[in-house]
Amino acid sequence: MTTEKRGTVYLVGAGPGDPELLTLKAHALLKSADFVLHDDLVSPQIVALAGPHAITINVGKRFGVKKITQAEINRLMVASAERGLNVVRLKSGDPAILGRLAEELDALEAARVAFEVVPGVTASLGAAAALGVSLTDRRKTSRIMILSGHHADGREAIDEADLAGLAREDTTLLIYMPGRDFEKISRQLLHAGLPPDTPSVVVSRATTPNQRVFAATLADLASLKGIEAPAILLIGRALAPAVMRASRAEELNLLVDEIAREIPIAAATTDAERSFAS
Amino acid sequence: MTTEKRGTVYLVGAGPGDPELLTLKAHALLKSADFVLHDDLVSPQIVALAGPHAITINVGKRFGVKKITQAEINRLMVASAERGLNVVRLKSGDPAILGRLAEELDALEAARVAFEVVPGVTASLGAAAALGVSLTDRRKTSRIMILSGHHADGREAIDEADLAGLAREDTTLLIYMPGRDFEKISRQLLHAGLPPDTPSVVVSRATTPNQRVFAATLADLASLKGIEAPAILLIGRALAPAVMRASRAEELNLLVDEIAREIPIAAATTDAERSFAS
Repeated sequence: MTTEKRGTVYLVGAGPGDPELLTLKAHALLKSADFVLHDDLVSPQIVALAGPHAITINVGKRFGVKKITQAEINRLMVASAERGLNVVRLKSGDPAILGRLAEELDALEAARVAFEVVPGVTASLGAAAALGVSLTDRRKTSRIMILSGHHADGREAIDEADLAGLAREDTTLLIYMPGRDFEKISRQLLHAGLPPDTPSVVVSRATTPNQRVFAATLADLASLKGIEAPAILLIGRALAPAVMRASRAEELNLLVDEIAREIPIAAATTDAERSFAS
Repeated sequence: MTTEKRGTVYLVGAGPGDPELLTLKAHALLKSADFVLHDDLVSPQIVALAGPHAITINVGKRFGVKKITQAEINRLMVASAERGLNVVRLKSGDPAILGRLAEELDALEAARVAFEVVPGVTASLGAAAALGVSLTDRRKTSRIMILSGHHADGREAIDEADLAGLAREDTTLLIYMPGRDFEKISRQLLHAGLPPDTPSVVVSRATTPNQRVFAATLADLASLKGIEAPAILLIGRALAPAVMRASRAEELNLLVDEIAREIPIAAATTDAERSFAS
């Protein structure tokens, strides 16, 4: 019998991006962790909240440790917990949604390593809050479907047959990793019966300083360009206020441009500055 | 033109129950709020985090201000913001899911009151974390459907036709407010084609000290009794590890009972205590 202390692995949701959207528990665990293994999508500001003596590793498959496999991540967690370290496995959003939590928990359970899952604010809820909309509305929308546009290996996860059952006007669709082929998603959902004017919004880098909102109708979804990953695609009548606000903002921008052309504000200001300077 | 300062209304998710699952932002807003309007389901420990000078009101429809209407809640928010107060409208879980956020935002927008939505950990994600399971698993489950078993006014929200499209083995169902008629939900999902052995778990009062887990198969769902609200019903193959752990725990309990009958531990302990006491 050994009295050696074994560590615990905490599988922690880092929330959608804004460090203020970490939970108090996630924040405390990060501060006291010995070892932090985080995904690419976890922002540097959040990783920086780890204590000064913590070792942090980016195990993301794109920008982190090159060619690291899921099996290697699992082994890292198990081996460090067996050596008595407190491990935080930090995952963007909520760990239970479209990550690899199931596989990591299987590995920990097989190795009899103690673990605890700490939930987080999932990306789509961060996006909805940033848009200032509700995802359900008892007057029209009562359901939410969360799905991924792509598998983790890059293959498309949505096919025509799959989308058919989703085309219900009382359902808000939250599509993670929508990729760039919005034309195809649009065509398939229209074909499945959703109205062409169904409000559709893409939020890129939600809740971060680089957040951008792209609003359209389902029929016009393909016209959206220049969207940077990570992004979330939200479709449904619940999004109507977000589309309305985005189009008001666009009109206001156009109006300011028009006024600036008629009364050349920029030029006038420059003239005034010149007269002051001379 | 008036220079009078108007307040902002923050519509804030309080998370699933555990105060440690508040976001840092929700915690800070609560501490600095002048006026907190909260739902029934927000735990007293969380409401108590409001600053000492804050006024807190339970606007829940069951145990709070009796017979308060949604229109009255809206008026309270608007009037207090217009008087310059910083208002926190504290909603259990995440505000964008199955609350009345849409109506409250409409009222604030109509009154031109500034607002901000602060997302939270929604109840089902708190439950999944407490169960130690992932809700998706690229090996078998790629979708999540969130729906309500009941409308806010108590009417059932699920009917036979509705459930038909949900019976996909690659989808995890998260049913909020499932009510007590599990027999009906079970029958309808079986009729719609889900296998009888589909893992099904009810978590009552998730992430609180009173949390209880009830695990079954879809066919046996009706046998679950004594479940206290609020509860979440989670159905799908992703829940298999939770059902397995619950049945292991039950077997262990039965084994302890059996051993205790053969070697009467309780009686022996009592004897020993008696001999010590004499």
